[in-house]
Amino acid sequence: MINLTIWNEYYHEKKDEVVKQIYPNGIHGYIKDFLQEDQHLNISTATQDEKEHGLTVEMLRGTDVLIWWGHMAHNKVEDEIVDRVQMRVLEGMGLIVLHSGHHSKIFKRMMGTNANIRWAERGEKERVWICNPGHPIARGLGEYFEIDMTEMYGEPFQVPEPDETVFISWFQGGEVFRSGLCYKRGNGKIFYFRPGHESYPVYHNKDVQKVILNSVYWANRHENAQLWEDNFRPDDKMHRKTPIEPIETKGYKVDHEYLK
Amino acid sequence: MINLTIWNEYYHEKKDEVVKQIYPNGIHGYIKDFLQEDQHLNISTATQDEKEHGLTVEMLRGTDVLIWWGHMAHNKVEDEIVDRVQMRVLEGMGLIVLHSGHHSKIFKRMMGTNANIRWAERGEKERVWICNPGHPIARGLGEYFEIDMTEMYGEPFQVPEPDETVFISWFQGGEVFRSGLCYKRGNGKIFYFRPGHESYPVYHNKDVQKVILNSVYWANRHENAQLWEDNFRPDDKMHRKTPIEPIETKGYKVDHEYLK
Amino acid sequence: MINLTIWNEYYHEKKDEVVKQIYPNGIHGYIKDFLQEDQHLNISTATQDEKEHGLTVEMLRGTDVLIWWGHMAHNKVEDEIVDRVQMRVLEGMGLIVLHSGHHSKIFKRMMGTNANIRWAERGEKERVWICNPGHPIARGLGEYFEIDMTEMYGEPFQVPEPDETVFISWFQGGEVFRSGLCYKRGNGKIFYFRPGHESYPVYHNKDVQKVILNSVYWANRHENAQLWEDNFRPDDKMHRKTPIEPIETKGYKVDHEYLK
Amino acid sequence: MINLTIWNEYYHEKKDEVVKQIYPNGIHGYIKDFLQEDQHLNISTATQDEKEHGLTVEMLRGTDVLIWWGHMAHNKVEDEIVDRVQMRVLEGMGLIVLHSGHHSKIFKRMMGTNANIRWAERGEKERVWICNPGHPIARGLGEYFEIDMTEMYGEPFQVPEPDETVFISWFQGGEVFRSGLCYKRGNGKIFYFRPGHESYPVYHNKDVQKVILNSVYWANRHENAQLWEDNFRPDDKMHRKTPIEPIETKGYKVDHEYLK
Repeated sequence: MINLTIWNEYYHEKKDEVVKQIYPNGIHGYIKDFLQEDQHLNISTATQDEKEHGLTVEMLRGTDVLIWWGHMAHNKVEDEIVDRVQMRVLEGMGLIVLHSGHHSKIFKRMMGTNANIRWAERGEKERVWICNPGHPIARGLGEYFEIDMTEMYGEPFQVPEPDETVFISWFQGGEVFRSGLCYKRGNGKIFYFRPGHESYPVYHNKDVQKVILNSVYWANRHENAQLWEDNFRPDDKMHRKTPIEPIETKGYKVDHEYLK
Repeated sequence: MINLTIWNEYYHEKKDEVVKQIYPNGIHGYIKDFLQEDQHLNISTATQDEKEHGLTVEMLRGTDVLIWWGHMAHNKVEDEIVDRVQMRVLEGMGLIVLHSGHHSKIFKRMMGTNANIRWAERGEKERVWICNPGHPIARGLGEYFEIDMTEMYGEPFQVPEPDETVFISWFQGGEVFRSGLCYKRGNGKIFYFRPGHESYPVYHNKDVQKVILNSVYWANRHENAQLWEDNFRPDDKMHRKTPIEPIETKGYKVDHEYLK
Repeated sequence: MINLTIWNEYYHEKKDEVVKQIYPNGIHGYIKDFLQEDQHLNISTATQDEKEHGLTVEMLRGTDVLIWWGHMAHNKVEDEIVDRVQMRVLEGMGLIVLHSGHHSKIFKRMMGTNANIRWAERGEKERVWICNPGHPIARGLGEYFEIDMTEMYGEPFQVPEPDETVFISWFQGGEVFRSGLCYKRGNGKIFYFRPGHESYPVYHNKDVQKVILNSVYWANRHENAQLWEDNFRPDDKMHRKTPIEPIETKGYKVDHEYLK
Repeated sequence: MINLTIWNEYYHEKKDEVVKQIYPNGIHGYIKDFLQEDQHLNISTATQDEKEHGLTVEMLRGTDVLIWWGHMAHNKVEDEIVDRVQMRVLEGMGLIVLHSGHHSKIFKRMMGTNANIRWAERGEKERVWICNPGHPIARGLGEYFEIDMTEMYGEPFQVPEPDETVFISWFQGGEVFRSGLCYKRGNGKIFYFRPGHESYPVYHNKDVQKVILNSVYWANRHENAQLWEDNFRPDDKMHRKTPIEPIETKGYKVDHEYLK
């Protein structure tokens, strides 16, 4: 059983009638609906306007994989919550960042870059090519899949070179974009997946749905993550008080007390 | 000519008599002294207690490579200055992080991890092995070099897998550590170099000095960096208003105005 | 069920009485014995003196993970069999290369380098540090494990920068070595694991055994590998005869027939 | 001064009248002509039909960067020469592989994969996007450059994940391809650059010419490469006969003599 939390900003769907028709229960609700056909997922949702953005310590502690969708209010996400999510990723929680989530605080935090892109909103055709057909995230796909009506994201995408490039998109208007990228930070696996938009029904696309499902399995927290979790936090466990090999202490040691 | 800025927290050297004897003009001053034998370096220094920590917009704009040493007051570095340094790295400034700088805000920012380590302060021997003898940063070194009296840092080092592993250290007390790691973020090159300490004269070591000099050359801002600098910031340059290939716009577009 | 094949050169154990006592049924037999306590492994063995080195087309087609141990006769492995193993790795078979297998033709083939190291055979102590405690290959280990009597391998290890560094070894004699490295080539996962020797009982060590078992699970061929297998071989599937987007053919095409 | 050798199969240009008109002195001759405007390059050429394919030990020893173009006769390149070129790359020689050279023995050797692609020869338009505008190889380019008439190469490109992705191509017919990829193997830098064809005048394109020139500078052998060159070959230098730290030898050592 994978404990999945789907996080959504959830503003567009409440404020805009057209968006509301496409995603009546919000993008998070829509993603939950199609993922929940899988019996091995235990799915929760959380949204920006909830207390602590719905991402309490307990909530995150019980989350194996977190999906993130945001767009218009990235800067209103509290830094303290971003810190908390980052820590949980380092402990082993998988993180799947969708579409405009590239500019979220948490994605920029994990990347160390500004994650900038080029963009245009013209409802053009996107063809997503699979660069690595044997990758778990590409399971069940053909050589490529198409999205009829999409917002374009174009290179350069300012992210660190990924561990694996799974997808590259071709756009009708002439651009390309690295649409599926894998990273590992601490114990956690991170997948950035480009497709998605508030006002085009991109998450209705069956291939897009397959990718999201596959990526949840790929990013799932490994049972062994417990180890680094135990190890990396308590400061006194980081100080090796007794040497492993016998050695004699030399030199002068600053008294940190007097420095306070 | 490389415009190099050496940044130092500069607290230990002012408060502790033993440290002051080792580094009378501060660690930054000492590093400046040995680097300045190289005619191609134009060296400035900056310290934490200066206004804006000495890292004004103009200062950074004129800096090709920044060396960073901090230890006891990482959390007192202003977030705004960290943002500024990060942006400058993405624009192409090289960043060299020394020793306890692994826990600085700027290093953790660039890595996306907590950069944790194990440690012990026993003045033990360190042998730094060269994993990649043809690397520019290893120029002039033999198979390894030794530091007589060192603070131990032990694995696991919680950083993303590096682009290149240049050095791994062997410690007398039984630990190992990846002591020289290369990264690229945006246009900027980043080098983490482990050796150094406030109360042992590690920067007096000639091989350590060679590595720092080599890394300044390696990390130097590339003339071409100007390009991404121009490109990646202005938001309106990121919106591709006119399609390259002729296409017809489809679909509904959210009116961002009403969302405000 | 994972179909595992353990390959061994199997020369030392037949020719040398001391080695025979440590590994009476060969190193492959010994590894098979401890792995076979796991009910999910279906284990075969193959050795160099068998026809086609025991690695027939059918054998490899039925293998999900291949373990490789060789030492004194790397050059007597037929190139045709190396080609075949490489092709199977690209199709998705996991490859685990042990100890002196670093100089095997198949490992050098997959790396593109000479995989050189430094070495000394002095029965010294090795301490294997876990650099990535949450990694599946480190499951069940502590911070480090020790091998009492080992052959030393020292840096520089001439391999491409790995996807992940799982282990680094400390040696009593003063060296360090990257002892556990992960790579991906085509669909196949590759793990290099340093410990092991013909005349020291390294594979009797329980932690070494854990790592080998963990790595079999990690390297296991993914069900989705079928996809690239289907796709990447037939030459006519690589020629896209009909364009996806409507375009008009231009330019002159060389008649490849006349070139023959 | 960079010692550059341009290698060409040189078959199409001798056998086909149309190709001969585009490249009267061969593709190597054409590339030499436009590169030689740069005063810092000392350029030689070599072709497949020469003795030792023109790549003698002395020739390679005097080569800092090697450009490789081949297409119809990859399999007729002698393995011994491939070994020699590989060794020289590991020593620090840069290697630039152009277009159909992706299927050359030397490129597949360095990659460890089959380097397969999809393709179609329809004279379509290619738009090469710069993913990393500050990269030295992108110097002097805009956001993208176009090639009017090109052979299409499509993903999946079966190569290891690169160190850096510099270019991605958009094709009029609907495909995408990673057209500029950087690798490091041993001391040597490798750049794969997709554009080029025998029967379309792709190397007449000024932006393509800029990329090739930039990549020669990027791949240039580093002076420090001498170090690993000295170190990695002589077998007896790899055996550390005297331990660095004092230790007592233990255990049984196989007598390699009796094994012969």
